[in-house]
Amino acid sequence: MKKLKEKYYENKRDELGLNSIERLMKYLPASSPLMKRNVTYAHLDFEKIATAIAKKEPFAIISGLSPTGPLHFGHKAIFDELLWFQKNFGAEIYIPITNDEAYVVNKMDSLKDSLKCAYEEVIPGIIAFGFDPKKTKLFVDSDYKDIYNVAMQVSKNLSLRVVKRTFGFEEEIDNPGALFYRGAIQLSQIILPQLKEFGGPKPTLVLAGIDQHPYILLSRDVAKKMGLIEPSSIYIKFLNSLAGPQNKMSTSDPNSCIYLTDKPEVAEKKIDQAFTGGSPLAEKQKQKGGIPEACSIFSLLKYHFLDDKSFQESYLACSKGKVLCNGCKKGAKKMILEYLSEYQKRFEKAKGQMDEFLLKTPIKSILE
Amino acid sequence: MKKLKEKYYENKRDELGLNSIERLMKYLPASSPLMKRNVTYAHLDFEKIATAIAKKEPFAIISGLSPTGPLHFGHKAIFDELLWFQKNFGAEIYIPITNDEAYVVNKMDSLKDSLKCAYEEVIPGIIAFGFDPKKTKLFVDSDYKDIYNVAMQVSKNLSLRVVKRTFGFEEEIDNPGALFYRGAIQLSQIILPQLKEFGGPKPTLVLAGIDQHPYILLSRDVAKKMGLIEPSSIYIKFLNSLAGPQNKMSTSDPNSCIYLTDKPEVAEKKIDQAFTGGSPLAEKQKQKGGIPEACSIFSLLKYHFLDDKSFQESYLACSKGKVLCNGCKKGAKKMILEYLSEYQKRFEKAKGQMDEFLLKTPIKSILE
Repeated sequence: MKKLKEKYYENKRDELGLNSIERLMKYLPASSPLMKRNVTYAHLDFEKIATAIAKKEPFAIISGLSPTGPLHFGHKAIFDELLWFQKNFGAEIYIPITNDEAYVVNKMDSLKDSLKCAYEEVIPGIIAFGFDPKKTKLFVDSDYKDIYNVAMQVSKNLSLRVVKRTFGFEEEIDNPGALFYRGAIQLSQIILPQLKEFGGPKPTLVLAGIDQHPYILLSRDVAKKMGLIEPSSIYIKFLNSLAGPQNKMSTSDPNSCIYLTDKPEVAEKKIDQAFTGGSPLAEKQKQKGGIPEACSIFSLLKYHFLDDKSFQESYLACSKGKVLCNGCKKGAKKMILEYLSEYQKRFEKAKGQMDEFLLKTPIKSILE
Repeated sequence: MKKLKEKYYENKRDELGLNSIERLMKYLPASSPLMKRNVTYAHLDFEKIATAIAKKEPFAIISGLSPTGPLHFGHKAIFDELLWFQKNFGAEIYIPITNDEAYVVNKMDSLKDSLKCAYEEVIPGIIAFGFDPKKTKLFVDSDYKDIYNVAMQVSKNLSLRVVKRTFGFEEEIDNPGALFYRGAIQLSQIILPQLKEFGGPKPTLVLAGIDQHPYILLSRDVAKKMGLIEPSSIYIKFLNSLAGPQNKMSTSDPNSCIYLTDKPEVAEKKIDQAFTGGSPLAEKQKQKGGIPEACSIFSLLKYHFLDDKSFQESYLACSKGKVLCNGCKKGAKKMILEYLSEYQKRFEKAKGQMDEFLLKTPIKSILE
């Protein structure tokens, strides 16, 4: 099952004509843990970023987020990768928090609820990972309204035909705001670091799931027409749901994920109930071994808790039946609860640091 | 020819099921000069406004403007009518100046150019008519970005299908910003005075050309869904082009209109060259009379310079051949140049008064 999922990602990459992670790693002086695990697994035009890194020139990474609930371990993978680029190569990080999108595509009931979620959950949640406030800019669309002026500017570079062909709107269901979000606001967020206010034009990288690839292609068209540098992208595989490898961890389904703000007893219970690659019969598992590729706990460990050596050891111990699920879960619990405890202290502290991270720069270059 | 045009407006009114001005006038304690001339000629649901006036309750009028050049006598008709409602019944006036629309529908080359036009031409031009700063609020979309939050809110009440059916988009030509403008921003401007920040819900009236009727209908749907009062509307006939009754005065064609900031010698030349309802042969005109209905100069006088008595006299003098075009133009020149001279003094003064009129109220009710 897990094999099929793995194949889905690799097939999608090849279908879209994207490059594999192996090639990407050649361009960098170092590789991130997620690159080594093939979690960050595909890219488009990363060469530009590698060149900026080699020449020690500035570059920016953009990775947006829809504020619909607390952050979970799936988000952590994305922010770990961003942080790795910032710590190792000084990347400027831009994180648009798209409460407007959450509302117009019906993920949240009001702009207000989504705005509240942005400030109470998402922003402290991001800061808690340890970003550098001097090189990290967060903004929430409804409060950083300059983004709408950029979006009106961007609009002129796209016809409705192109937007419709790219995203396949449903006229009965979608509304003008959803179309404008997809065909203008999201693209504005991608080109934002290239505006004069932020020292652009400069190389930019979008870090996202491969489902976002159509936006990258549109943003490249738009950037070209606006005399900016075409954005590059890297894609990350989603962390599996606790319910099994068919789905990803999802904010909207509390049973699919461990939120980073879950209380220890809640997290523990979720681990106890998590789908694994083991057998109901211990004896059988000892003989035949487990299937770590299908196991949600192994997935969590692979993304977040194992270094290169222990990753290999754990994989073998499971697949050869030397460690059974109970024992493995016990070890996982310890690591996960320890992490949550430390993270949650930083989360509380982060509530007082939001102002250092919020982008307030007025965008005047397109109006003056 | 003029007869046909007249018929166009009346037919359009009846086709759309709107009410005639005669009925409207019954509801008001007084009638404006433009109502008496049947220039303001149709309405929808004006009863609500008449009730507010009778009960001395607050109501607002909204009338937007695309900043693409200087104001001309066509605009003056609209602002005269607004001013009449303000002076006689204390109407609050909201004037959205839609530089974003001017840009996304290709009337202006950049947001910046249209913004410049808004502050250098349109805003002082409006203030110069004599509005009360306490009861008149002007805003330019790119600078009053809160309107975009309202637009995202409004979006949720409309499907793309409805917007497309109403305006008939051309997918190759139109862009996401143009669709968002038509299907959300424009509607937001109409419901704006009904937000809590402005003491709403309250009765509102849109004053516009009948081509704007589809927006009114959409805005009524949206208002209803948002628990607001359905906006009413009144429609005004456009002032004829100086080139003849087939077209209206248009900002983009300097020969079609007299700009209110035209120098006297420019205005005089335009009057000299203006299309009239006279005959090339003076003798024939003396015998058969002129056709005031077709005459651009008579149109200008009818809208702006004649009281009830002189309107009747001028009409008869022309149609009976007692006054020929040269003599009539001479009289018109005197009145028009006098008006322009006075207006232009107020225009210069208005440049220092813009701050009193610009709407700066943050819109928080939809975010809190």
